Amino acid sequence: MAKFPFDIHAKEGKARTGVLRTPRGDIRTPAFMPVGTAGTVKGLYMEQVAQAGSDIILGNTYHLMLRPGAERVKKLGGLHKFGGWTGPILTDSGGFQVWSLSKLRKMTEEGVEFQSHHDGSKHMLTPERSIEIQADLLGADISMQLDECTEFPSPYEAAAKSMELSLRWGKRSLAYFGDRENQTLFAIVQGSTFEDLRRMSAEASVREDTAGGYGGFAIGGLAVGEGHEAMCETLDFTVPHLPEDRPRYLMGVGKPVDLVEAVARGVDMFDCVIPTRSGRHGQVWTDAGPYNIKKAQYAEDNSSIDSDIDCPASNDYSKAYVHHLIRSGELLGAMILSWHNIAYFQHLMARMRGAIAAGTFEAFAANFRANWRG
Amino acid sequence: MAKFPFDIHAKEGKARTGVLRTPRGDIRTPAFMPVGTAGTVKGLYMEQVAQAGSDIILGNTYHLMLRPGAERVKKLGGLHKFGGWTGPILTDSGGFQVWSLSKLRKMTEEGVEFQSHHDGSKHMLTPERSIEIQADLLGADISMQLDECTEFPSPYEAAAKSMELSLRWGKRSLAYFGDRENQTLFAIVQGSTFEDLRRMSAEASVREDTAGGYGGFAIGGLAVGEGHEAMCETLDFTVPHLPEDRPRYLMGVGKPVDLVEAVARGVDMFDCVIPTRSGRHGQVWTDAGPYNIKKAQYAEDNSSIDSDIDCPASNDYSKAYVHHLIRSGELLGAMILSWHNIAYFQHLMARMRGAIAAGTFEAFAANFRANWRG
Repeated sequence: MAKFPFDIHAKEGKARTGVLRTPRGDIRTPAFMPVGTAGTVKGLYMEQVAQAGSDIILGNTYHLMLRPGAERVKKLGGLHKFGGWTGPILTDSGGFQVWSLSKLRKMTEEGVEFQSHHDGSKHMLTPERSIEIQADLLGADISMQLDECTEFPSPYEAAAKSMELSLRWGKRSLAYFGDRENQTLFAIVQGSTFEDLRRMSAEASVREDTAGGYGGFAIGGLAVGEGHEAMCETLDFTVPHLPEDRPRYLMGVGKPVDLVEAVARGVDMFDCVIPTRSGRHGQVWTDAGPYNIKKAQYAEDNSSIDSDIDCPASNDYSKAYVHHLIRSGELLGAMILSWHNIAYFQHLMARMRGAIAAGTFEAFAANFRANWRG
Repeated sequence: MAKFPFDIHAKEGKARTGVLRTPRGDIRTPAFMPVGTAGTVKGLYMEQVAQAGSDIILGNTYHLMLRPGAERVKKLGGLHKFGGWTGPILTDSGGFQVWSLSKLRKMTEEGVEFQSHHDGSKHMLTPERSIEIQADLLGADISMQLDECTEFPSPYEAAAKSMELSLRWGKRSLAYFGDRENQTLFAIVQGSTFEDLRRMSAEASVREDTAGGYGGFAIGGLAVGEGHEAMCETLDFTVPHLPEDRPRYLMGVGKPVDLVEAVARGVDMFDCVIPTRSGRHGQVWTDAGPYNIKKAQYAEDNSSIDSDIDCPASNDYSKAYVHHLIRSGELLGAMILSWHNIAYFQHLMARMRGAIAAGTFEAFAANFRANWRG
């Protein structure tokens, strides 16, 4: 079983809702995956992550291979045991963080050599090593092929070359991955914002969607500065080339309005650091966009953060209190807002799933766009 | 009722165990009060503070008067509502932090003028203003008289002058406090490490222990550099001058071994930032003293933090995981260790209460001293 059963329960336009069934639990789609960079979703207990409505979390290969080290995580029982998350985990390939965080990258056909941003130590990430780390050592339920995140903006030729490298690395990832009973591997479609490159990347990846092939398809290289409109356009001409019956995962996205637009275009899975990262800095996410609770207007506001959301973080603390905590640099401020934001994102996903099932998603999305001021 | 009923259930030597009954709940003594400096016990949800066995927390007048401001806390419903703690709260007078944190202090008979360590704004703290902030604005269940924390070391004459000023400020605090149905005021005994000054301070404060007088007696000016031996000696010659039937509170203390020695000398209440502050830096408290979980020896230690303590923080995470979290600067590391340390301190208090009740405290204390390597 290298592919997890994916039951689509309802469709409305291109949007769909269903369940991806993994040995470690069901993932209700469209799904938002909180990012557990270094084995922890920053500022939250895992019970809170689950209670907020998360079915799956993401782990970062780059961070974990450097600290505490993938072999060490394996020795300690794997990433699930290490971090105390019993549900499914998807790991990224490490490629994106090598590109965005590390120093002195040397990219070859073989793979990418880089220096740790912690201590400058040298490391090599190849398609094979990435899968070894993700599937063998961390024990990810869903692994991602190693890819090169194409720089944005990129000239057509460079984007094509980069996309082709990712395709070759995908084949090697797939070959190393082989057929595993309880784990699956997703392909990553690249091609920047060029329609024919995205089509070629998607079609070539889909050709690998054989019995032993990819269990899902990701769209990479977006949310890297191209802007909301270009992201939507790229989804418009990429998603139609992906199989109907496999999950589609838009990597690193995004703001609530991005999630709504991507779901409208047929995307099933997302991950993003926004809810926790912005929460640590006082940002509160709402259907109307984010606001910063540090603003003076909240200093004496005794209302709760968001009484529409069934989460203690959203209900049990006044805006005035959280305003004070964030202004004072208190840990609890970051804890409450990170938790609330995760709950808000999951609440949004639940509303989208419900709307698609009820056939009211188009109205939901139109209303959402109209209210959004982000 | 300016004095809360204090039922002493058992005594062994000078040690005693009982319950201080406040309108907001019972305080089992000997009691450890976690410090909620700015309306939050750093890194913990209030539910965790209570679940760990805390009956009462402490709030800091100095911090709260500067941010968010005492009048603002009052406007928002008082400190209990603001911070979400429904049990009793003791506030300090602000004197100690003016002395240790603020800039440009000007001490007069009237009070102390100081500049905020946040923004340099000027403030005046008098005995009357301190009680107004604590009892009227924050709504503390137990307020502390304004005192001057005598510098250590101090020549005899300076210590005497400082102690006498605290006595006069105590009288003014008491006069302003008056008779309140549901709130009480504690005196603070000063006198540095000089036996006759401590006796004079205690006796003069106790003379105010009339119907409308102090509801308890604190010992201030310790844990300021005098060392464990001098602290124990000072308790030896101070506690006998305090009334048997009123709670005795040793301010700002301390390490576990200090708590054991002070309980052995008849102290009933304690507060200290150690469990949370040191937890944020990786320190784990045990009966044998603290150790730092950042040490390499814990990198692959899959045992839990402390399986003897009935707290999720102590049981549900491996040392290796917390080692990784603290090394990575992850919020969750500080959260888990602050929580565990509070639970450890409360577990220690519970064991001492149980030992006194069972008549085995002397053996408990001897065993504790023998194991301690802190």
